[in-house]
Amino acid sequence: MIDPQRYPRLSRIQVPADLRQFPEEELPAIADELRAYLIEQVARVGGHFGAGLGVIELTVALHWLYDTPVDRLVWDVGHQTYPHKILTGRRDSIHTVKQKDGVAPFPKREESEYDTFGVGHSSTSISAALGMAIALQRQGDDRKVVAVIGDGAMTAGMAFEALAHAGGMGDDGSTPEPNLLVVLNDNQMSISENVGGVTRMLGRLTGSRTLNALREGGKKLLGDKHGAPARFVRRWEEHWKGMFVPSTFFEELGFHYTGPIDGNDVPSLLAAMKTLKTLKGPQLLHIITTKGKGYELAEGDKIGYHAVSPFDPAQGMVKKAGAKKPTYTDVFSDWLCDMADADPRLMGITPAMREGSGLVRFSKAHPQRYFDVAIAEQHAVTLAAGMACEGAKPVCAIYSTFLQRGYDQLVHDVAIQELDVLFAIDRGGVVGPDGATHAGNLDLSYLRCVPNMVVMAPADEDECRLMLSTGHHHDGPAAVRYPRGTGPGVAVRDTLDTLPIGKAELRQRGGPVALLAFGAVVAAAAEVAAALGLTLVNMRFVKPLDRELVLELARDHQGFVTIEDNVVAGGAGSGVAELLAAEGVSLPIVHLGLPDAFQHHASREELLAESGLDAAGIRAAVLARWPELGTPPLQSASR
Amino acid sequence: MIDPQRYPRLSRIQVPADLRQFPEEELPAIADELRAYLIEQVARVGGHFGAGLGVIELTVALHWLYDTPVDRLVWDVGHQTYPHKILTGRRDSIHTVKQKDGVAPFPKREESEYDTFGVGHSSTSISAALGMAIALQRQGDDRKVVAVIGDGAMTAGMAFEALAHAGGMGDDGSTPEPNLLVVLNDNQMSISENVGGVTRMLGRLTGSRTLNALREGGKKLLGDKHGAPARFVRRWEEHWKGMFVPSTFFEELGFHYTGPIDGNDVPSLLAAMKTLKTLKGPQLLHIITTKGKGYELAEGDKIGYHAVSPFDPAQGMVKKAGAKKPTYTDVFSDWLCDMADADPRLMGITPAMREGSGLVRFSKAHPQRYFDVAIAEQHAVTLAAGMACEGAKPVCAIYSTFLQRGYDQLVHDVAIQELDVLFAIDRGGVVGPDGATHAGNLDLSYLRCVPNMVVMAPADEDECRLMLSTGHHHDGPAAVRYPRGTGPGVAVRDTLDTLPIGKAELRQRGGPVALLAFGAVVAAAAEVAAALGLTLVNMRFVKPLDRELVLELARDHQGFVTIEDNVVAGGAGSGVAELLAAEGVSLPIVHLGLPDAFQHHASREELLAESGLDAAGIRAAVLARWPELGTPPLQSASR
Repeated sequence: MIDPQRYPRLSRIQVPADLRQFPEEELPAIADELRAYLIEQVARVGGHFGAGLGVIELTVALHWLYDTPVDRLVWDVGHQTYPHKILTGRRDSIHTVKQKDGVAPFPKREESEYDTFGVGHSSTSISAALGMAIALQRQGDDRKVVAVIGDGAMTAGMAFEALAHAGGMGDDGSTPEPNLLVVLNDNQMSISENVGGVTRMLGRLTGSRTLNALREGGKKLLGDKHGAPARFVRRWEEHWKGMFVPSTFFEELGFHYTGPIDGNDVPSLLAAMKTLKTLKGPQLLHIITTKGKGYELAEGDKIGYHAVSPFDPAQGMVKKAGAKKPTYTDVFSDWLCDMADADPRLMGITPAMREGSGLVRFSKAHPQRYFDVAIAEQHAVTLAAGMACEGAKPVCAIYSTFLQRGYDQLVHDVAIQELDVLFAIDRGGVVGPDGATHAGNLDLSYLRCVPNMVVMAPADEDECRLMLSTGHHHDGPAAVRYPRGTGPGVAVRDTLDTLPIGKAELRQRGGPVALLAFGAVVAAAAEVAAALGLTLVNMRFVKPLDRELVLELARDHQGFVTIEDNVVAGGAGSGVAELLAAEGVSLPIVHLGLPDAFQHHASREELLAESGLDAAGIRAAVLARWPELGTPPLQSASR
Repeated sequence: MIDPQRYPRLSRIQVPADLRQFPEEELPAIADELRAYLIEQVARVGGHFGAGLGVIELTVALHWLYDTPVDRLVWDVGHQTYPHKILTGRRDSIHTVKQKDGVAPFPKREESEYDTFGVGHSSTSISAALGMAIALQRQGDDRKVVAVIGDGAMTAGMAFEALAHAGGMGDDGSTPEPNLLVVLNDNQMSISENVGGVTRMLGRLTGSRTLNALREGGKKLLGDKHGAPARFVRRWEEHWKGMFVPSTFFEELGFHYTGPIDGNDVPSLLAAMKTLKTLKGPQLLHIITTKGKGYELAEGDKIGYHAVSPFDPAQGMVKKAGAKKPTYTDVFSDWLCDMADADPRLMGITPAMREGSGLVRFSKAHPQRYFDVAIAEQHAVTLAAGMACEGAKPVCAIYSTFLQRGYDQLVHDVAIQELDVLFAIDRGGVVGPDGATHAGNLDLSYLRCVPNMVVMAPADEDECRLMLSTGHHHDGPAAVRYPRGTGPGVAVRDTLDTLPIGKAELRQRGGPVALLAFGAVVAAAAEVAAALGLTLVNMRFVKPLDRELVLELARDHQGFVTIEDNVVAGGAGSGVAELLAAEGVSLPIVHLGLPDAFQHHASREELLAESGLDAAGIRAAVLARWPELGTPPLQSASR
């Protein structure tokens, strides 16, 4: 329970209606309490941190001024919504964030009526808010709609598409202008520092104290004294700010621009927003905030404090001593540097995930071959295709869930042309605490149907390295898809050896059933195979399959069990079934994989167990189909 | 063969090296010949027309000035590349365009070394060209790279992502600026008229004759006479044009902007391009052209002449008399208007495909509920999701191949949240003459793996209407996926009846094998079933499958043949196999579908036959597996 001594105001706020009982003067104090409470809670249980600290004042101002949840508030990405959650009924449960059955780490419609739109991937908020604004407007409903989007998220194409659509509406008179406020939360960060032209454009901001003086001066200069045409003076009105702030960019797209203002100052925010609330048409409010605001260590290390494990607020995060087991991301990171040293043609591409995808060391060692393209998966993939056309060997490192954003480019630009691009797909399969929006449950299905693709899934860390080298040397599109976190913990070689493409690893001959396992679930499958004396194959290649081995095993086994951490629908196991069908082989087959449902947030282990993909689950599924295997394997089938 | 009398210059040009033998003064005359030849050839065989006519001068100027194919020329979309193809070795074969084994309708790497990047989908050119420029630069190779992109294609997010990346490079000094010229071909059109904020921004162009005068005047005004700070004068230099032309937009992103110039005037083009060729860093040349230029009828009807069937150049296109069989697009078009009349919640969304997707009549009948969002599939899908949050019932009409661009949004914004969006997916399955880039061969695979989706494929026109109504009434995400062109030609009801979700249609009971057919291939399957006395099911639902019927049929049939116009990998047929496996039923099954390969352009019928999906192919596949069916069916199996 919240301590009313420490939080005299916040302890009286369960929902925004309570907040709105307070007079405007008390809002800064409420913001201070909210910040302190957020620090206390996140330090206790971990979670997304820096982004929330940056929008404390904005969150208070929005919920105070707007009649949420009647008015619609759409938060982009959702890293920054812990303060929103605290003010909207989840103050006393925020400490359960990211845990199974706890508060979701991102806005989630089924969790709260205040969470108007589920997010997780960035840059969706303007589209969603515009859709809401249009639907309400067409029903004659004048509720307000506000989208809050970071400058990092603004780099993605879909944010631009939405701005351009909203800004252009009403131009031909056929449709009314949408009433929509977009708050651009400019903190110069996504998870890493922002890069690219959008940052350049927003970075144009200079000392704003002199702006008004210049504005008036310019008008006088042009109009009053020199009799310039009226149109010219009007243009001056529109453009003077473009010389110092990025208004022109947004105004050219059709938005009315206000700003920049200090987004960590409640009075400034309210002053601007009160006016904007009365205006019609698409509005953009540009606010400048500090990620990590109010917690010195987080302000000083914005990347490190983007998301945190539990820590002592007085001390900050402490690096854990001792050698950790390397994650798959670490394995990729090392491989990328080693292969780059060996092959000058290698180029490394990340859409704004330098840290998460493991490109930090590479970016320093090979700055000329390192490309952070901002949150722009579409461009990342086609950029790689272009590089491959000229003899480079690009490695495109994208999380499984985000590769969905570059799917057309993977098909249309890479696969159709059989270009030599390697996709290093981190966070494949079950991801866990970040919930359904971040799950990598679909990638084997959506990749396997694409012609020309080689798709690999490593069973352990060393194999991950082997597969990356294999994909790099393969002259065509290839993907290595590996899970979040650590693997079985096998030693990783330091050479750049490769694997033969399309060859599986027969780990154990047994019978009468063969387990055909793909990727991260091989270890659990191996336990079951050992216990029951079954044949075990580490399939390695989702595409092309090891046809020869599969057909050979089909001849002397009673049945197959395919196991993968991908949905069953169209997954790797279905590939095995398709192969058998194409060869006219009819054999009992059981497909184990993820369910045909979006999974809630929980730990990776919890979700795998829930899906029956741990050893107990696999064993149970095998025995449900072949109960006789519960007894020792028959002599005739064990060779 | 080309007539040297009519084409004294063009007849001497096989490749650009020949073109470069001509003096600059003759280029306008060459352009005239090229235009006349293009009109002659396209009138003869049909094809993309208006876009090519608009870029005749640009094509001549580029190939004359740049050392193609050593210098790299990347055309966006590719509608406009017939003149390029004529100048680059395909003059005498251009009349085979779009035909099987003929010239491809879009640039294709395997067809010509002058086709540096295969296209078909829009807005990829800047990413690809940037990738090329970077790869060449890193190799110390100073070849030039030029991308040509239309203003329509500029509306897509990925073009923005690429501009922002290219423009921001070099800002931090770690990487050099890329040397890249982007030619923005501004004709105010995509296939339809352009819409949205980008058009608004580009439309800012005003009388350019006075621009230079104003520029100098402004500088004087600010600097010389009034002693404004030097920084202010520099800003003026950057911004004065923003008051009249869209330079600011591009310059804020980091491009050097030149233009706008008349892109249908060879001397203007060469004057600008000669300078640009010497400059380093990212350059944008804004040219204004007229789509259909030089053929009066095409200039007057830009949409109608975007792509044409053969016609008499003297007379223009003539509307064919008599009632045509309605296409699936027509069925959708009628349904959309009828359902919109019946349900005020319906909203119709198209990403710049008003004509192709059949929204013309709807756009006129319900302008307040019609949304052309420009080439912006990502935004289209999430806009629909936002609308659905507020009680609207959006219908998102997107071609199968283009929905790949909105895949993440379909998963993340629609399906996870179970929002009530209907996807009307035209051009599903085999598309044909437009080639691999436009094929809809993957959609059943990439949709079926997504939880919460209802996926339907109609066997005929009437069923298409039934399914659209079914999807509209279903409270959640649904997709109706129908093929290009016409169907069997059954009468379409005028009511808004629905189908029970997940129920197949048992068309014929026979035996001992059951044909389970999905969508457009039902008709061919029916022929085979009738001839061989087999059971035939029109499956209707790819997801959810008719579990009950499938299991019932599995009990009294020797085997199943699944038939679909989607790749076999992860397709509808694999769904049937997965269902059987999940139920512990082992039954011989044959999957007929499209190959695991990208298909070349040819007619739809040719491709279906090649894939074994016409009646002959299906029959042959059935008999290959069950040769005994060539004799009349056994008494015991026919009921």
